[in-house]
Amino acid sequence: MSIAIEEARAAGARGEVPVGCVVVRDGTIVARAGNRTIADHDPTAHAELIAIRAAASTLGSERLTDCDLYVTLEPCAMCAAAMSFARIRRLYFGAADAKGGAVEHGVCFFAAPTCHHRPEVYGGINESECGELLKSFFQARR
Amino acid sequence: MSIAIEEARAAGARGEVPVGCVVVRDGTIVARAGNRTIADHDPTAHAELIAIRAAASTLGSERLTDCDLYVTLEPCAMCAAAMSFARIRRLYFGAADAKGGAVEHGVCFFAAPTCHHRPEVYGGINESECGELLKSFFQARR
Repeated sequence: MSIAIEEARAAGARGEVPVGCVVVRDGTIVARAGNRTIADHDPTAHAELIAIRAAASTLGSERLTDCDLYVTLEPCAMCAAAMSFARIRRLYFGAADAKGGAVEHGVCFFAAPTCHHRPEVYGGINESECGELLKSFFQARR
Repeated sequence: MSIAIEEARAAGARGEVPVGCVVVRDGTIVARAGNRTIADHDPTAHAELIAIRAAASTLGSERLTDCDLYVTLEPCAMCAAAMSFARIRRLYFGAADAKGGAVEHGVCFFAAPTCHHRPEVYGGINESECGELLKSFFQARR
């Protein structure tokens, strides 16, 4: 998670919402990314989606069966569904997101009957540090 | 929708699930795509996500404010959320998807309080033709 936090800091320094993500397999980092929606003019360029795409490309498979994903913020519906399609094994996330989250909030995607693969989920990892990054980013923008 | 159906047919011919998508602005096609999850080793390469990314890249903006999206199948949660982030104006879809859909089925994403932009939605456009493509694709695979 400390590397996901590094990615989040780097994203914030670029003026992006500070969220970072790492995909790990067998103790090795397969992909790491921060948000890039503004830089890439890409509404889908959340840290998780970029990292999942990069990991799948690196591993040459659309299924990341033995991979775990670390992200500093509770994933949205887009990213949660992408994790399900990618067969992510375990999801570790930092701060909860009552406004846009889709794991413990909103549509609670992994609990839906139309979700056909559910990772094991561990929330609240380095929660205060992950949340503080977001809080200070949005405070500075006001 | 006829061009989305062309894209779906082309995807099916490549061995992908036959779903196609078109993004239109001011009566002009900005992007068109079919599913490419297998070819690209990319679990996120649904027709809609590819078309949204291509349209945003072409228009140089992460917001597709005046754009309408046509897709042959009811979008999943990943694609519905991506449409919301992209500020798609109107969504026209073909066949309903009770198993994986997230517009009229499953998490009904656009109705969730954590969805902050909802397109106007028109379902059932060329429904039988769109559905028939999928049905014959999966029948042939059995």
